[in-house]
Amino acid sequence: MAITVVGSIAYDTVKTPFGERERMLGGAAVHFALAASFFDDVRVVGPVGDDFGEQQLAVMSKRGVDVSDVEQITGGKTFFWHGEYGWDLNSRETLDTQLGVFEGFQPKLSERSRSSDVLFLANIQPEVQLTVREQLPDARFVALDSMNLWIDIAREALVKAIERVDCVILNDAELRQLTDKPNLISAAREVLSWSPPNGSSSARGPRVIVAKQGEYGAALITRDSFFALPAYPLETVIDPTGAGDTFAGGLVGYIAAHPQEELSDELLRRAMAHATVLASFNVEEFGTERVERLSGREIVARIGQLHAMTQFSGAPLQLRG
Amino acid sequence: MAITVVGSIAYDTVKTPFGERERMLGGAAVHFALAASFFDDVRVVGPVGDDFGEQQLAVMSKRGVDVSDVEQITGGKTFFWHGEYGWDLNSRETLDTQLGVFEGFQPKLSERSRSSDVLFLANIQPEVQLTVREQLPDARFVALDSMNLWIDIAREALVKAIERVDCVILNDAELRQLTDKPNLISAAREVLSWSPPNGSSSARGPRVIVAKQGEYGAALITRDSFFALPAYPLETVIDPTGAGDTFAGGLVGYIAAHPQEELSDELLRRAMAHATVLASFNVEEFGTERVERLSGREIVARIGQLHAMTQFSGAPLQLRG
Repeated sequence: MAITVVGSIAYDTVKTPFGERERMLGGAAVHFALAASFFDDVRVVGPVGDDFGEQQLAVMSKRGVDVSDVEQITGGKTFFWHGEYGWDLNSRETLDTQLGVFEGFQPKLSERSRSSDVLFLANIQPEVQLTVREQLPDARFVALDSMNLWIDIAREALVKAIERVDCVILNDAELRQLTDKPNLISAAREVLSWSPPNGSSSARGPRVIVAKQGEYGAALITRDSFFALPAYPLETVIDPTGAGDTFAGGLVGYIAAHPQEELSDELLRRAMAHATVLASFNVEEFGTERVERLSGREIVARIGQLHAMTQFSGAPLQLRG
Repeated sequence: MAITVVGSIAYDTVKTPFGERERMLGGAAVHFALAASFFDDVRVVGPVGDDFGEQQLAVMSKRGVDVSDVEQITGGKTFFWHGEYGWDLNSRETLDTQLGVFEGFQPKLSERSRSSDVLFLANIQPEVQLTVREQLPDARFVALDSMNLWIDIAREALVKAIERVDCVILNDAELRQLTDKPNLISAAREVLSWSPPNGSSSARGPRVIVAKQGEYGAALITRDSFFALPAYPLETVIDPTGAGDTFAGGLVGYIAAHPQEELSDELLRRAMAHATVLASFNVEEFGTERVERLSGREIVARIGQLHAMTQFSGAPLQLRG
């Protein structure tokens, strides 16, 4: 089976307390694709400018990612982000954003990209997410990411997009903002209650909510279950850029690689573990540096460690009272 | 065996988005004692004023807590705290603090309180914590809580106190502040490297660090292991006051109730689970209201649920690359 991802392909200039990189390869679709490529075929859809070259594409194609729907816009400039992280990496300031070719971007999906059975709508304008969603009406599993900007300026379109996906992946603060509910569980239940109007092509509505909690990990909320995992503990975190997209790549990639399985809690939990581990590698170095030379063996080893770090025995005890 | 706890006994006036309570029973030692009373004998040491009555003491003695070392200071006023919580309960503002009898408090421990084999030094002046620690030189397990105020104004004494305990329980932000290390693991490792000067009565130094992370849960760091648990998910959180002390009561209480066991990771993890569950009950209602009528059966049931919410199978998968 295969995954299509639509989202940004970018150059990032990033400063953290541990160093600085200029114009390194980044973007949600890139981080997602590299992570998901450990699990399944990945097809990337997104625009780049004249300043984007073979070398950048090769980072993805080396990992087997299909880049034939990466659209080079003549005379255009690749999306650019410049940011700086604070002391504890929990806060960041955007110093510059240049949309470039992303302005007015209308994704053109090839026959092959439309035939994928799994779709990830990375963080872009909700209207664009909706357009792409409509081009894969029969996808088995569709997940979506977004950000506070779209909740602020395009909430209606975002809600419409969310109603048409299976899985919503957001930062927990965004989930609260989206629903105006301070409690995570209430916020998630609210989104789980949304469904498209009758007569819509896909009338199911979201059934999986993933709340990313940064260095604290992530929670998974479905209609009848809750699961949470801490982040994999690291003594050295160099650059958090792309961690959320790498997480999504691990999650969606793992689900895509199990087409024969029902979307059970058990499958989703294993997907959360792989997402957590992929994200932990991403932040160990700048940009895509670490994930580019990551091996499946390293992922499996860290899954085992994460498992060991989260288990406790429920040994019974005679309590007083 | 038995636990001695030294700390505040207080009246709290609390406003949250869900209501308000005036002068309800509170204080670190009270919340700790109620939680720990499900596991072992508890002896409370702390001062109260003329305004403290039999009714308040009865809340503790009803749960079997020994209150004979609660010292009533004639002409004094009980410690008073007035606070208000914000929209999402993650921020709070202190509107008033009246130290009352806590000013110049010198704990007098009875023979019985000195004979306990487990000691909890709740959040008070580090100098007072040190004085009490010296009165139980042979305690099998000693844990300590503190707060940002003491890191700001009495860091040297606090470090001295920490060097003389087995277990440090702090909010993760306080752990970072204490060590000036933004990374949680590095901060914990730093504290684990502290030990009292040679020739000191107890030359072991801290070996267990618990980082409380509020609604995200808590992490446990020892010299060779890491463990993390999410908070028990609640749709209704009414009042977080005392959650940290209730957590400590569950943790230290569970350890106290297992004197025959080594302080193994397995024991500590089960203690973390009980701490998490006790804290989850505490926040469901104002002050001590919920824990006062809590039953052992409810605790055990929630431990089972927490266990189910944190498990995943490490099913192997053939990864690409």
